Amino acid sequence: MSRMDCEGRQRKLRAELDRRKVDALVVTHLPNVRYLCGFTGSAGVLLVARRPVFFTDGRYAEQASAEVHDARISVVKSGTLPAVAATCAKLGLKRVAIESEHLTVAQFGGLEQALGKGVKLVRMAGAVEALRAQKDADEIALLRNAVGLSSRLFRPLLRSLHSGLAESAIAGKLEYMARKAGADRMSFETIVASAERSALPHGVASATKLPAEGFVVLDYGVVLDGYCSDMTRTVHLGKASGEARILHRAVLEAQLAAISVVRAGATAGEVDWAARQELRRAKLDRFFTHSTGHGVGLEVHELPRLAAGNDAVLQPGMVITIEPGVYLPGKCGIRIEDMVLVTERGYEVLTPVNKELIELN
Amino acid sequence: MSRMDCEGRQRKLRAELDRRKVDALVVTHLPNVRYLCGFTGSAGVLLVARRPVFFTDGRYAEQASAEVHDARISVVKSGTLPAVAATCAKLGLKRVAIESEHLTVAQFGGLEQALGKGVKLVRMAGAVEALRAQKDADEIALLRNAVGLSSRLFRPLLRSLHSGLAESAIAGKLEYMARKAGADRMSFETIVASAERSALPHGVASATKLPAEGFVVLDYGVVLDGYCSDMTRTVHLGKASGEARILHRAVLEAQLAAISVVRAGATAGEVDWAARQELRRAKLDRFFTHSTGHGVGLEVHELPRLAAGNDAVLQPGMVITIEPGVYLPGKCGIRIEDMVLVTERGYEVLTPVNKELIELN
Repeated sequence: MSRMDCEGRQRKLRAELDRRKVDALVVTHLPNVRYLCGFTGSAGVLLVARRPVFFTDGRYAEQASAEVHDARISVVKSGTLPAVAATCAKLGLKRVAIESEHLTVAQFGGLEQALGKGVKLVRMAGAVEALRAQKDADEIALLRNAVGLSSRLFRPLLRSLHSGLAESAIAGKLEYMARKAGADRMSFETIVASAERSALPHGVASATKLPAEGFVVLDYGVVLDGYCSDMTRTVHLGKASGEARILHRAVLEAQLAAISVVRAGATAGEVDWAARQELRRAKLDRFFTHSTGHGVGLEVHELPRLAAGNDAVLQPGMVITIEPGVYLPGKCGIRIEDMVLVTERGYEVLTPVNKELIELN
Repeated sequence: MSRMDCEGRQRKLRAELDRRKVDALVVTHLPNVRYLCGFTGSAGVLLVARRPVFFTDGRYAEQASAEVHDARISVVKSGTLPAVAATCAKLGLKRVAIESEHLTVAQFGGLEQALGKGVKLVRMAGAVEALRAQKDADEIALLRNAVGLSSRLFRPLLRSLHSGLAESAIAGKLEYMARKAGADRMSFETIVASAERSALPHGVASATKLPAEGFVVLDYGVVLDGYCSDMTRTVHLGKASGEARILHRAVLEAQLAAISVVRAGATAGEVDWAARQELRRAKLDRFFTHSTGHGVGLEVHELPRLAAGNDAVLQPGMVITIEPGVYLPGKCGIRIEDMVLVTERGYEVLTPVNKELIELN
């Protein structure tokens, strides 16, 4: 954590605050707090003003002094937001922004009341998230580590797939291996979706037992040093039919097509379109019912969203998933997902795991 | 889930809405949605009006029709809250309440705009949470199941404690056993805090290796059929010193003292005071730096809060934790936690696990 460039991140944010003519931002969303000052605990607020102040309670006093960079630490007795309000008043701030996508209506009301009439609260959305979309070198290194860890779990995971075993037991085994390998935790609820459940885009591991034959979607990720990974492979129990092979091939071609258009300057919508267009040729596009991918970092779903028509421009340093899928309701589904780094001239696929169809006996 | 009395819960909530003179409540907090209509997915909003309507998107259409009780289901194409607004308008509602502790400022703004001038949005806090604090018979049965599962994991957990093993590997083993035993997931991030880390009240399992000697705080819980458990035991690696035994005994006496005053009609503050008073006698009260406990149900932290001075009155059917602790900074900490059912005439301790000091060799 020591190399984290909190000062640089805060400087970019303050420039944005200046542009929007506000004196400070009350950062309450914990991944944003962590990004800006390094605090990893579960209760803390960062006031990004000319002199930033981090507020937490007694439980986290020790942790804060070990972790927080580039901010004064204030340990409060009761209520973090009232303490933030008192500091805003003391500093003579006039226009204070809040994170409108994260602050609750009740917190907003409490803060407004504590601040009194002299201070105007400004609703601001996505300012820190926009910075976070473009990863710096430290973050890319941490993301590589997380991707590396989950990729190394894939072979052992395959060895634990046996017909008759519950999906949730397989997920549990995977999660245990991840912990032993050093993961903080999983980055989202592990998906092990077998046979007709593979047609559910959100088929989290259930009590369903693996059949002797059919597809199994394996979609999982870990958190390592705070950074998330996310990958999907779809394998086949027993020998795949000709139709199953064709479906898997079509999804793989769509995934490769989408990856091939990734570069700084392309739009998110263009990447999505490339996957959709490839599936259209196979007359499968209507079975691709979600977007093509999303940014990944301190959270598993970040900006940009690779969705139809999104004209957000890809920037070097963005790390995104590319994960088209095809879902035939009541029958089967296939999804293939890598993490991809956007570079000036193209892309780098971060996930070093085979994508060809694997048949397990 | 089939026995869940959604109709009765909604009726109580509507009585409260009548008292507060609002026509409907937009329920966005997912545990509240689940409580009121049974939906367990991760995207859905319940409009509790005379005729309740549950809104979700295409991904959850199938799941909603299988799970949702006592509400009409509306599957929306884009944006759940705009659809809620349209329905409010169509029903001619004038005063619509929202959950101010859960709705974000941005969601509130969007809803306000979609509703237009004819409808007044009313900020309401804690209405469903207040109902949820008092568990019905079905819920108590589900909580017993969750407590039973985590309690059965305690002996195997002890067998996995070996000096030199990382705390996170032990947590991983526990979580794997929980999955295999049928848990949906853990109810919070597992705490395995050894040696001086035991002095951290929130010492989630880290890469720290277990020493040959010293306390280990084990604080964990599972989610089973949606309901949470939460328990803590502090064991000692190697033979405990006289001082260590005295500390452990003091915490246990405080925990028993707090339990002994639990009954319907007592206040939350009285229970907290009993623990604190007992620790005062041992001159340890200043090392007890958090509250004595909290309600548990669909969420691991629910009402009531057993904190100093809280005059909330305990009701029969409440299920609470009693978890005093003593933390000597840089040295060691001890916490002991059970789940307790409040009854008319007293209490029932739900956690059937030994609380005497265990020394492991």
